[in-house]
Amino acid sequence: MAEGSGRRMAPSRGRSVLRAKSALTRDRIADVALTLFNAQGYTAVTTNRIADDCGISPGNLYYHFRNREDILWYLFEGVEKRIHRLFLDPAFTETGVDRLRLQIMGAAEILAEFRFFFHDHIAIMRRDPRVEASYRGLQRDVTRAVARDLQPLTGEDGEQSFRLASSLWIVATGWVSFLEVQGTAVDPVSILSLVDAVLDLVRPRIRPAA
Amino acid sequence: MAEGSGRRMAPSRGRSVLRAKSALTRDRIADVALTLFNAQGYTAVTTNRIADDCGISPGNLYYHFRNREDILWYLFEGVEKRIHRLFLDPAFTETGVDRLRLQIMGAAEILAEFRFFFHDHIAIMRRDPRVEASYRGLQRDVTRAVARDLQPLTGEDGEQSFRLASSLWIVATGWVSFLEVQGTAVDPVSILSLVDAVLDLVRPRIRPAA
Repeated sequence: MAEGSGRRMAPSRGRSVLRAKSALTRDRIADVALTLFNAQGYTAVTTNRIADDCGISPGNLYYHFRNREDILWYLFEGVEKRIHRLFLDPAFTETGVDRLRLQIMGAAEILAEFRFFFHDHIAIMRRDPRVEASYRGLQRDVTRAVARDLQPLTGEDGEQSFRLASSLWIVATGWVSFLEVQGTAVDPVSILSLVDAVLDLVRPRIRPAA
Repeated sequence: MAEGSGRRMAPSRGRSVLRAKSALTRDRIADVALTLFNAQGYTAVTTNRIADDCGISPGNLYYHFRNREDILWYLFEGVEKRIHRLFLDPAFTETGVDRLRLQIMGAAEILAEFRFFFHDHIAIMRRDPRVEASYRGLQRDVTRAVARDLQPLTGEDGEQSFRLASSLWIVATGWVSFLEVQGTAVDPVSILSLVDAVLDLVRPRIRPAA
């Protein structure tokens, strides 16, 4: 829905419908691009191919996105928002191991959906300083938040908690690639094996009191 | 040293010297390529650039390697041999946590040296079925071997041991990328933080008896 579509009177109504239609096309291009990126890898997909699969002209695509990097950034902002909501939103009040379980289940969904990015994030970041800065911030913020959540559960010190959170981050972000190398198709069911893997790493460290 | 250089008599001595020289050039090309791959990423480096940095002509490079994929394969065979020696060689008789510590220290060295590969192994494997088959075998053999070693230490069942070994594999192969995203320069000292990270994951599961 176009923002503020209800705020204006009749004369601008035609424009806001157009704007809503434009946002729909934008999302559609991003969806098609995501499917192609996941299937063929980010660098192998051209904007011409994306336009083609959308059934629009390259000119129409360039009206919505300047280039492939712009589409990536649009997708990445969506990933960022969802990860923030899972790990950094104070409204998410679940605590303890349940909190971690829900977070990992949410993360597994995101990882499967954007697996092209986690396959070669270093190469993508090298080409795009905007994505690099953003992913660096995400890794830092999430590992810190998870370390903070773990401390009361395990009773371990800050350094050890950060080290555990770092390992969990690496296992989570690397799980899809691991499954693919192993020859396991990545789908909403197979990716859930990540939840057990992560909880297995945390469980033996939980204090009896917690 | 050229293989079998001592086995023949004087007449072929000239040829074996040439062969030794050729092997030296081959290794030099591979070394230069490895440095470039690590600095710029595998896909960004051309054979022309490798020849240039070696101070040889592209024609001379093609005498030793047909293409970039051939250089990658040569490097990868070296990685494979070293990983086999660490994880699958029956002559490596250390046991228990000491065995794991030595293995991870050895692995850390290999990971830092060939980090270009672990940065985007999925993209590289997609382009090269030979590397794909080989890396798939490596992941399978090492995770199984580690799971087998862990079982008597933790007393956990086969499935749980395999899950732990899988997580350790992912942490190990993802550690260099994690450090780089974090902004930590990867050198022989910083990479050793991997050893603590992995041992931290195993230690709380070790049975008092072991």
